[in-house]
Amino acid sequence: MKPLFYSDYLEGAHPSIIKALADTNFEQTPGYGEDAHCAHAADLIRKACNLPGAEVHFLVGGTQTNATVISSILKPWQGVLCSDCGHIGIHETGAIEHGGHKVLPLPSKNGKITASQIALALELHHSDPSSVHTVQPGMVYISFSTELGTLYTKDELKAIAAVCHEAGIPLYVDGARLGYGLASAECDMTLAEFAAIPDIFYIGGTKQGALFGEAVVINNPTLGKDFRYAIKQNGAMLAKGRLLGIQFESLFSESEEKTGLLYLALAGNADAQAAKIKAAALAAGIALFGDSPTNQVFLIADRALEERIDAVAGYEFWQKYDEERNVIRLCTSWATSDEAVAALISAF
Amino acid sequence: MKPLFYSDYLEGAHPSIIKALADTNFEQTPGYGEDAHCAHAADLIRKACNLPGAEVHFLVGGTQTNATVISSILKPWQGVLCSDCGHIGIHETGAIEHGGHKVLPLPSKNGKITASQIALALELHHSDPSSVHTVQPGMVYISFSTELGTLYTKDELKAIAAVCHEAGIPLYVDGARLGYGLASAECDMTLAEFAAIPDIFYIGGTKQGALFGEAVVINNPTLGKDFRYAIKQNGAMLAKGRLLGIQFESLFSESEEKTGLLYLALAGNADAQAAKIKAAALAAGIALFGDSPTNQVFLIADRALEERIDAVAGYEFWQKYDEERNVIRLCTSWATSDEAVAALISAF
Amino acid sequence: MKPLFYSDYLEGAHPSIIKALADTNFEQTPGYGEDAHCAHAADLIRKACNLPGAEVHFLVGGTQTNATVISSILKPWQGVLCSDCGHIGIHETGAIEHGGHKVLPLPSKNGKITASQIALALELHHSDPSSVHTVQPGMVYISFSTELGTLYTKDELKAIAAVCHEAGIPLYVDGARLGYGLASAECDMTLAEFAAIPDIFYIGGTKQGALFGEAVVINNPTLGKDFRYAIKQNGAMLAKGRLLGIQFESLFSESEEKTGLLYLALAGNADAQAAKIKAAALAAGIALFGDSPTNQVFLIADRALEERIDAVAGYEFWQKYDEERNVIRLCTSWATSDEAVAALISAF
Amino acid sequence: MKPLFYSDYLEGAHPSIIKALADTNFEQTPGYGEDAHCAHAADLIRKACNLPGAEVHFLVGGTQTNATVISSILKPWQGVLCSDCGHIGIHETGAIEHGGHKVLPLPSKNGKITASQIALALELHHSDPSSVHTVQPGMVYISFSTELGTLYTKDELKAIAAVCHEAGIPLYVDGARLGYGLASAECDMTLAEFAAIPDIFYIGGTKQGALFGEAVVINNPTLGKDFRYAIKQNGAMLAKGRLLGIQFESLFSESEEKTGLLYLALAGNADAQAAKIKAAALAAGIALFGDSPTNQVFLIADRALEERIDAVAGYEFWQKYDEERNVIRLCTSWATSDEAVAALISAF
Repeated sequence: MKPLFYSDYLEGAHPSIIKALADTNFEQTPGYGEDAHCAHAADLIRKACNLPGAEVHFLVGGTQTNATVISSILKPWQGVLCSDCGHIGIHETGAIEHGGHKVLPLPSKNGKITASQIALALELHHSDPSSVHTVQPGMVYISFSTELGTLYTKDELKAIAAVCHEAGIPLYVDGARLGYGLASAECDMTLAEFAAIPDIFYIGGTKQGALFGEAVVINNPTLGKDFRYAIKQNGAMLAKGRLLGIQFESLFSESEEKTGLLYLALAGNADAQAAKIKAAALAAGIALFGDSPTNQVFLIADRALEERIDAVAGYEFWQKYDEERNVIRLCTSWATSDEAVAALISAF
Repeated sequence: MKPLFYSDYLEGAHPSIIKALADTNFEQTPGYGEDAHCAHAADLIRKACNLPGAEVHFLVGGTQTNATVISSILKPWQGVLCSDCGHIGIHETGAIEHGGHKVLPLPSKNGKITASQIALALELHHSDPSSVHTVQPGMVYISFSTELGTLYTKDELKAIAAVCHEAGIPLYVDGARLGYGLASAECDMTLAEFAAIPDIFYIGGTKQGALFGEAVVINNPTLGKDFRYAIKQNGAMLAKGRLLGIQFESLFSESEEKTGLLYLALAGNADAQAAKIKAAALAAGIALFGDSPTNQVFLIADRALEERIDAVAGYEFWQKYDEERNVIRLCTSWATSDEAVAALISAF
Repeated sequence: MKPLFYSDYLEGAHPSIIKALADTNFEQTPGYGEDAHCAHAADLIRKACNLPGAEVHFLVGGTQTNATVISSILKPWQGVLCSDCGHIGIHETGAIEHGGHKVLPLPSKNGKITASQIALALELHHSDPSSVHTVQPGMVYISFSTELGTLYTKDELKAIAAVCHEAGIPLYVDGARLGYGLASAECDMTLAEFAAIPDIFYIGGTKQGALFGEAVVINNPTLGKDFRYAIKQNGAMLAKGRLLGIQFESLFSESEEKTGLLYLALAGNADAQAAKIKAAALAAGIALFGDSPTNQVFLIADRALEERIDAVAGYEFWQKYDEERNVIRLCTSWATSDEAVAALISAF
Repeated sequence: MKPLFYSDYLEGAHPSIIKALADTNFEQTPGYGEDAHCAHAADLIRKACNLPGAEVHFLVGGTQTNATVISSILKPWQGVLCSDCGHIGIHETGAIEHGGHKVLPLPSKNGKITASQIALALELHHSDPSSVHTVQPGMVYISFSTELGTLYTKDELKAIAAVCHEAGIPLYVDGARLGYGLASAECDMTLAEFAAIPDIFYIGGTKQGALFGEAVVINNPTLGKDFRYAIKQNGAMLAKGRLLGIQFESLFSESEEKTGLLYLALAGNADAQAAKIKAAALAAGIALFGDSPTNQVFLIADRALEERIDAVAGYEFWQKYDEERNVIRLCTSWATSDEAVAALISAF
């Protein structure tokens, strides 16, 4: 079998997680996240984030997490500002609208939006004499790392949060790929530095070493009230909730190599493998589409290159670039091996 | 640790499932249920149900399955008829209403409703000159086995389906505990005989041997169109969908003892253990609350009995019975051992 | 044509309203309720209610008012406690559920619920260890006068409000028939005394002399924020909003006979005509169903009586009473004449 | 008072409508649109549209009509394709999203979209291997005349309908300003020719001579089933429904001048007055923004012009054009007089 680079959720989980699930299999625990593993995992996350007062909740997947968080925060007539490549606006089959809310996209650059764009959108809304005829921006959603693999700097994030807080609306960060962002050589924040900025964010497990699972961290006490009702109502409360606790216990423990949290160690491997792919592509004269410093590499490929890659590895068609060329995506993960990367690179 | 009988989802999964997850952990598969394990599991289910043309979809949990199925079927002005102890009306935090639909409860007897109750409700609605001012019944929801552990007979189910079909509305069966029902000594149907009756039902995995997972079986081609959009929109499409496929492959394979499907073998153990508890209770002069022939036993317990049980086992408070007595629930599962039951019974 | 007593919205509007609409027809005013008539009408209502700080908004009809108010207040996982004959639960085609919320009916007596029932429902919810699996009561809805024409006393209303406020949830009164209640000989409150009690209520125009229109009065500043967005989103913001202002200007001006507000004078006529019908029925030995002191009279009628009435007047079938008898409803309105009542009574 | 050109709903109703309301005021009629006036008005509309089999329903306002129609048609995972200046996407406070559906805007030219744009959007969706992760286009919404006053030709409309029908989705036309479109000198269709094309459309009354009211015409039998439930659920069923019937009876009767339907005669006046304004502007060297042939005129105005107009007439700021100039909107209506236009033009 040729190695696949379609996405970052092609494999199961890091072996230590499989082992932990097996080891705890016959424990009898209460359901719905009220077990000791969830409590312990939440403590580990609070500690890693240096947010001793934060609420931590575990949900199963990203779309349901976004739908649950956003609909729990917004008033019916409010919408959510985001980048025009934000996952909630494009790849969630209208889950946000299903919950009653409009997604309010802003034009992005490299997958990112800026504090001043948000400030302008808020200003335009509130100064419009017909504002009640339009959807009121009620929160801001950004992704870190973004859907294009790019990163906000600490200053950019702080500026966005400042605009939000001046307007009295929360900042929510989708961290489906949070680890890949934090582990990147180009990231200028630690997890704790990052965690201090948003009102609410989630730490993605599904794409970063777990079988599934996202940990929502709420660092604004006004947002957390009754959040468990929202989880249940959105069908996001796992009966055997301990499965989430056990997985995040593993991810937020020291890695075997004692180099820090397993979560970041796994992401670091993915980023490093992606960097090798990127370097090899550049060395071979292949143009990048965007310049992601994380685990997704976007190449501009002509037909010959696509065929050469296809012969040795799986890649994802992203979009048309021009008549002769496509943009293709190559994703690495915690599980990507040197051998797999070597096989891929041989096609360049 | 004393054995717990709180619910039927206290443990992880049957060891063969854990093993299958571990064995397949490094396979690279497409996401979202489009992998070979899901395809294979769906085939096994179609075969076991003798429904070669049915659609089979895998979701994560029961509340999300109910919300997804019901909102995918109903028109905005329609509601769902069910028993007044139906799970959707009581223990899903209004997930059905969150999707826009009213739950229309009918008074139940032993957790069950009848074809004639449904026929009457439909007749009352459609003969009401103000019908457009009221919610139109658009489908029927029942549980098998019911929330009180009871069973519909084949004739009862067929009569309900006949009323539904005469009215042009589908019958949906919540099978969170389908196996416990079918494996009961008092059940007069095989899986295939059951499966032929509803338009749509789900086979519960979470409470019956899996880590999680519910398999929706659609036996009415008008209901299946675009169902995957509904799954995704409801946040119910697992990224690593193969986890569901792998688990149902195990459950719908022959059990090690070659006595039939693992799914039914596991349920059979739970039912047998529950029968022992019930027999011991009756022998000890303890009154039953209802007469469940499946894996849930409801006892009418005075304070002394509660204390004796509490000393040796975990039980669930169900409701007050009178000033001196409570109804308590004891659940067995695929994992309930002879030793656990013996410990519990010693308190009677 | 025989006179009709089907409902209290059989005619157009009080002639002074038609005249006001004609007189103002060529005025050019801003839309959406931002005109001088709406401002003036709101002032008149604030004055009549002795609520100088209240917000007043004008909507078109009752169902849309209930849907707008309730969905603007509740969190997604909250429902609304009400009587089991509450209009929102029965005759609004699931408009509340369409907005995402469950209606939580309590058993009523004469159409009314009590403070202690509400307190118990709240206590049961919040003491339930599984509360997050159930819908959280987030507000209370009652009708004044009720759907059966009955009245809460001032003490009953105050007790309900006290329970609500202790629990931190608002009390909302549906005043589709508020005038008929306040004008009743049995009512122990003035409009201002009534208005001081709920957090939010509406003053019904449609059934009480206007062509259409309901005035929402918000006496709790936390509920009014951004309410105009909610009105617009629910399709309840009339483009030519001045039509509502003009009508409520008329209703909340002195009546021609200088006996107080036209609104109450019109309701007083209806109540007086209903009292005559009730007295005549009792004198003729006809049993009442309930004992409404407002504009709806419910009689228990055998077939012969129904036929006699049908020969001279229109009535509404309400429900079956027993094999031989039905409950029928007779409604009066601002427009009911002595002649019409005399014709009806002749049948008794 | 200077004449106002803010919008086309500044006045009440055509005097014949006020008279009809007064004349019928004391009739007693059934509620909710089941009266003889509504039946008669529906017949007049069917006749005028030459659609003998069409269903006709009367609602109160445009936003509620759009929300009711769209949510009654779409499946939960479907959205509505429209122009990026479509009213539903911009000026309805997210009413469509409140009903659970995403608005899918296409870039417009002069407020219009084309059949080939729609075909491309459909093709892109259905050929996307990830289509189930995105919102499925389930209907097309266009406005006639458009929000910018422009018109589709008969061929353009037919081409759009053909694309829709090939894809199996309905075409819905928002006719808030339908009369202004049909009465335009540049329109190449009669009402009946227009009416034959869409699956469903509405005839706007609010902006075209009525106090309020929109008539939904359903020319596709699969869409009409149970539509009255949808009307009621959306709070759009007027209790005194005859008010809508009476108004549309007037609008769809011969005008006093016997020149055809009053509805079109009134729109014709508005269009003619707008044409005079446009001609005067061009004669004065003022640039148009777009070239609306209907009742809305958009001018590019420098500050001096704005001040001159403001001195003699009311106008609406539309948007900034450049640093020195704004786009302003001038609306005419059935009630716009020669004197008002003369006053306005004097400023040019």
